Amino acid sequence: MRMYDLITKKKHGETLTKEEIEFIVDGFTNEQIPDYQMSAFLMSVYFKGMSLQETIDLTMAMVHSGDELDLSPIEGKKADKHSTGGVGDKTSLIIGPMVAALGVPVAKMSGRGLGHTGGTIDKLESFPGFSVSLSEQQFFDNINRMKLAIIGQTANLAPADKKIYALRDVTATVDNYSLIASSIMSKKIAAGSDVIVLDVKCGSGAFMKTIDEAVELAKIMVNIGHGVGRTTYAVLSDMSQPLGNYVGNALEVKEAIEALKGNGPKDLMDSCMTLASYMLLGVGRAASVQEAEDLLESTIKDGSALNKLAEFVEAQGGDASYVWHPEKFPKTVFCEEIISAEDGYVSEILTDEIGITSLLLGGGRETKESEIDLSVGIRIRKKVGSYVRKGESLARLHANDLDKLRAAKPRLLNAYHFSETRIEEPKHVLGIVTKDGVTLF
Amino acid sequence: MRMYDLITKKKHGETLTKEEIEFIVDGFTNEQIPDYQMSAFLMSVYFKGMSLQETIDLTMAMVHSGDELDLSPIEGKKADKHSTGGVGDKTSLIIGPMVAALGVPVAKMSGRGLGHTGGTIDKLESFPGFSVSLSEQQFFDNINRMKLAIIGQTANLAPADKKIYALRDVTATVDNYSLIASSIMSKKIAAGSDVIVLDVKCGSGAFMKTIDEAVELAKIMVNIGHGVGRTTYAVLSDMSQPLGNYVGNALEVKEAIEALKGNGPKDLMDSCMTLASYMLLGVGRAASVQEAEDLLESTIKDGSALNKLAEFVEAQGGDASYVWHPEKFPKTVFCEEIISAEDGYVSEILTDEIGITSLLLGGGRETKESEIDLSVGIRIRKKVGSYVRKGESLARLHANDLDKLRAAKPRLLNAYHFSETRIEEPKHVLGIVTKDGVTLF
Repeated sequence: MRMYDLITKKKHGETLTKEEIEFIVDGFTNEQIPDYQMSAFLMSVYFKGMSLQETIDLTMAMVHSGDELDLSPIEGKKADKHSTGGVGDKTSLIIGPMVAALGVPVAKMSGRGLGHTGGTIDKLESFPGFSVSLSEQQFFDNINRMKLAIIGQTANLAPADKKIYALRDVTATVDNYSLIASSIMSKKIAAGSDVIVLDVKCGSGAFMKTIDEAVELAKIMVNIGHGVGRTTYAVLSDMSQPLGNYVGNALEVKEAIEALKGNGPKDLMDSCMTLASYMLLGVGRAASVQEAEDLLESTIKDGSALNKLAEFVEAQGGDASYVWHPEKFPKTVFCEEIISAEDGYVSEILTDEIGITSLLLGGGRETKESEIDLSVGIRIRKKVGSYVRKGESLARLHANDLDKLRAAKPRLLNAYHFSETRIEEPKHVLGIVTKDGVTLF
Repeated sequence: MRMYDLITKKKHGETLTKEEIEFIVDGFTNEQIPDYQMSAFLMSVYFKGMSLQETIDLTMAMVHSGDELDLSPIEGKKADKHSTGGVGDKTSLIIGPMVAALGVPVAKMSGRGLGHTGGTIDKLESFPGFSVSLSEQQFFDNINRMKLAIIGQTANLAPADKKIYALRDVTATVDNYSLIASSIMSKKIAAGSDVIVLDVKCGSGAFMKTIDEAVELAKIMVNIGHGVGRTTYAVLSDMSQPLGNYVGNALEVKEAIEALKGNGPKDLMDSCMTLASYMLLGVGRAASVQEAEDLLESTIKDGSALNKLAEFVEAQGGDASYVWHPEKFPKTVFCEEIISAEDGYVSEILTDEIGITSLLLGGGRETKESEIDLSVGIRIRKKVGSYVRKGESLARLHANDLDKLRAAKPRLLNAYHFSETRIEEPKHVLGIVTKDGVTLF
C-alpha cells in the first residue's frame, strides 16, 4: 500500500477501506507517512468528504493508536459528558455530583483549558489541594465508593488524533465534519464510558455557527458512537452568549455551588438538566426525561448533590470546606463595573470577546505553559434580552492587575451589541440528536 | 501575510493576488513555508483551479526564483521549442539545424533524459567529444556566428518550480493544468527566447490522454506566453505510438541525419516541419506556414541543414565526421528481430512500453546517476496501421547484454496491439493553438 495511491483515491472521491485508513493513521503516527502527504490527504478529505463507515474506521484507528481506558473494574454502566467548548461552561461541576448522587458512576477524564475556554480541571483547582493525579486504582476505587472521580487526560490518549489535529490546525483542514467528529469521538471512546452525552454548542461563539451545522456534526458523532457500541446522545445548545452569569475559574465554581443549592440561572440549569437526563436515560437509571429531571431535582432539594461535590473534592485532596463557605475563595484586588454608554435591549454578547476579556484578565492560558489566575473573571449582569439604561452596569470585571483590567475593558464593551426593539430571551437548549433522529425545540 | 490564510482563500475558491502568489513561491523556495502547508495549498489548487492571471503570476514568481537568461547579446529574435516529452522524439536535432540554416538564432537550453524519454543532450553526446559545457560568452558567440548552440540547463533555472514539482510528485498534485502549464512555461521563459513553440503530445503515451486535455493545457501555456510578452504557439501531436522509426540515442541521431538528407519518415517530418514553421512565423522569417515549409524544404534539398548540423557539432567539440559517415556510430553486439505471433493490423503501440524496452536495454536513466548506453535501442518496423503476418518482424532490438535483451523482449511484445479490421494510419499533427484560437486537423 502506498500513501500516494490513497491520496489519489480520496482525491477522486472514492471510499477507503478500513485497512487503508488504518495504514494512513498508523503510518502517520509512526512517522512513516510524512506531514506533506498527510496534509494533501486531509485537504482531499475536506473536498471529498468521508462516508460514515470511513469516519468510524478513522475514529477507531485513532482510538487504537494509544491507551484505551478499561473501565470494567467499575461496577455498573458508566456515563460521560463532553462539551464542544463554550465560555462560562461549568456544567461538569454540576452534572457530575447530581448524576453520581443518583448512584450512576461518572468516570471523567478531563483536559485543561487552552485559549479562552477554561478547562474543568483548572476550575476544580480553585479548591486548595485539589489534584487530578490519581493512580488508576485510586480512580476506580473512588468511583466504586462514591461514583465520581476526575483524572487528567493521559498523554497517550488517541495520540494519532493529537498529531493529526496539530497538522490540521496549520493547514486549514480543521473544518470538516468527519474530521471534527472523529477527533472528538476518538478521545471519548478511548476514555471508556458506556454512555456518551455530547453538548454540541452552536452560535456566534461556537465552532458551529448555525443550527444546521451543529445538527450535521451531532448526527455524525452519534452515529460513530452507536457504530462502535456506545450509547450516544447529542444536546444542541446555544452559544450566542456565555452560559450562566460568571466567567472565570473560582467565580464559576462559586456559581456551580450556588446551582447545586438550587440558585442556578435558568440557562445553566436547563443545560445541566438536559445533559444529565440523557446520562441517566443512557445508563437506564431513568425511563423518561421527565423521570430523570425529577430525580435530578431531588438531588438538589435534598442536598445530596452538594454533599457529593464536597465528598468528591475531599477524595481528590481538595479543601471541601470551600463548598460550605464559598466566601473563602480568593477575591481579586480590583473590581470594576462596566457601564453601558447607551439605552437598549442586549441583542448579542459575543462569547469570543468575553473569552478574550477573561484571558486578558489572566484567567486563561495563551500557551500550554501559562500560569493562570484562578480568582479573576467576569460577572455578566445583563444577558441577551435584558433592557439596559445608559449608566447601568453591563458586567463587573474582577482583576488583580490594573494594566490587565485596562486591556480587558474595551473587549468586554466590544462584546455587547444593542437593539432598540425588544429582543426575546434566547432558548438555551435547541434540540436533541439520538440515533433515532433529530428533535429541535 | 500568513500561509494559513492563503490556503483558506484558495480552499474557498477565491482568487489570489500577485503579491500573495509571490509570498507563497518565495516563502516555499526559502523554506519559510513548510512542505505540509504547500501540499495542502496545492491540493486546494487541484480542486479549485487558478485563473489565467494567477497562473501567469505563479509562472513569473517561479521564473524570478532563479537565474533568467538574458539573450540580448544575440542579434535578432530567438526561437525555442519545447516538447512535453515523447518516445523517439528527435525533432530538436532536425529542427535546430533547419531553422538556423535560415538565419534564425536558436538558443537552446536542454535537459538530460530521465526515465524512459531520452534527452536531446544524451543523443548529441553520441558524437564523440560533443559537450554542452559552454561558457555564456561561447554560447552567445556561437549563436551569433552560426545561429545554433545548446547548453545544459543550469541548476538555478526556476528553482521554485523544481522544488514545487518534487512536492507535487509525491502528493498526487501533478495533474492540474495551471500547475503543469506554469511549470513548463517558467523554464522556457527563464531561458529567454522571444518565440516559444510548444509540442504538446497527446495519446496513450503522453501525460495528456485526450485531445481535449491537450487543447486545454496548450491554451493555458499559449496564454501564459503571450501574457508575458513571448510569442507562443502550441502544436498538438499524436503520441499513440513512438515518433519515427528509431528509439535509442545513437539510433535516433542516425535517423535525424537521414531526415536532414530528405529520408525522414512521414510522421517525424510532419512534426518537424510544423514546429519549425511556427518558429519561423514567430520570429517573422516567414509570412505563412506555406512559405515557412518551402524555406525549410530548401534547407534539406540544398544540404544547408545537414551542413549546419556538422558545423554545430564541431563548434561544440564533437566529431563532425560522424555526420558524413553515420556508419561510424558504435553498433551493438547483439541484434534480435522480434517476431509477431499473430496476423493483423497494428492498432496501437504503447509508447510507455517502448520507452521501458529502451530503458531495459540500457538506453535510459533509472536514476540521475545512471550511465547510459548510447548504442542500444529499437528499430520499429511496423507502425500503427501496418498489416503484419505471423512470423514477420515487428521490431529489431539492439543490445550489448543478453540478460538485458531477454528482459526487454516481453515489454516490446507487450507494446503491440492488433486488430483484425483495417486500422487507419494515424495523423501525427493534430492541431495548432495560437493566441487567436484552436485549429484541429
